[in-house]
Amino acid sequence: MAYYTLPVENLIEELRKLPGIGPKSAQRIAFYLLKVPRKEALKLAHAIAEARDRVKFCQICFNVTEREICEICSNSKRDSSAICVVEEPMDIVAIERTNEYKGLYHVLGGAISPIQNIGPDEIRIKELLARVKEGQVKEVIVATNPNIEGETTAMYISRILSPLQVKVTRLASGLPVGGDLEYADELTLGKALAGRREI
Amino acid sequence: MAYYTLPVENLIEELRKLPGIGPKSAQRIAFYLLKVPRKEALKLAHAIAEARDRVKFCQICFNVTEREICEICSNSKRDSSAICVVEEPMDIVAIERTNEYKGLYHVLGGAISPIQNIGPDEIRIKELLARVKEGQVKEVIVATNPNIEGETTAMYISRILSPLQVKVTRLASGLPVGGDLEYADELTLGKALAGRREI
Repeated sequence: MAYYTLPVENLIEELRKLPGIGPKSAQRIAFYLLKVPRKEALKLAHAIAEARDRVKFCQICFNVTEREICEICSNSKRDSSAICVVEEPMDIVAIERTNEYKGLYHVLGGAISPIQNIGPDEIRIKELLARVKEGQVKEVIVATNPNIEGETTAMYISRILSPLQVKVTRLASGLPVGGDLEYADELTLGKALAGRREI
Repeated sequence: MAYYTLPVENLIEELRKLPGIGPKSAQRIAFYLLKVPRKEALKLAHAIAEARDRVKFCQICFNVTEREICEICSNSKRDSSAICVVEEPMDIVAIERTNEYKGLYHVLGGAISPIQNIGPDEIRIKELLARVKEGQVKEVIVATNPNIEGETTAMYISRILSPLQVKVTRLASGLPVGGDLEYADELTLGKALAGRREI
């Protein structure tokens, strides 16, 4: 008996598929789920099923929502002349928390990554292009992650939008606020220097 | 809108309760579960429910099993004169993989930890005592973790078993096989020295 009883093995196997969960964590979580009160464990099972039943993606921006059109897209107070392009719905929450942006969003659902075999057609760039072509949009803020995939995606978007009359911007790279200059990596420090502003 | 739609928030909240899952991982896993095919996400929900429905704890050793008595306890080829005491069912799998042990087990379900408010009555020490008192057992191998809680638990078990005619042993501490001496911490190296054997 080098293995657990079948339902435990199955549970471990399913948990291992989750992002960031290795074999050890999967074991630990599985036994945690067996140890807590039955009701607690089933709450997670129900939360998964309910999220899959109730959550849809907004038909305009592809944010998560329970309606056809999300709260942001259907809010007439938002500035419909700006679209902020993000990789995932979580990025929207991060930007909303800043209270600095009142425009609309567009969720790509990933970033271009030749290594992971994700090309421009695998993410929602066509849909973005269609939205911009409608003519209302004046600025597209590309807020993809500041890594290779995010930069590649930003470059690609700026290239395909260049024939249209729209300003394409990118979030500033630089030192994180509250950070320590001596701990900044060379790339970040380089970007911070290049993007320096008069005070 | 600084938050996700309710079913997503619920899912993130349930995921955060899992051991080793912080707020960022919970978010990442929640959106993974919304992104994969519906069937995949529901497989995890079903695996949780099924594990809770079908898995019980062995009435003798408290290992996980689908029967009343687990496969190890009901296997007449196992040496019933030895009981190996472990903290969790996962530890049994680890020991079984060594193929070095043919005796029985006893799962405590934790370790004594004054900090976490876990005393000897919160783990299955009474049940271990009852098994040893039945008289068949000649050796109790205490295989709790080599940390403060595990050592405390081992000490406690050795003390309460001392009036009985039973040998109580502890797994050897020392250098991990394949490890590098210069990277061993002082405590481990100290234990390895103290436990040195003639070759």
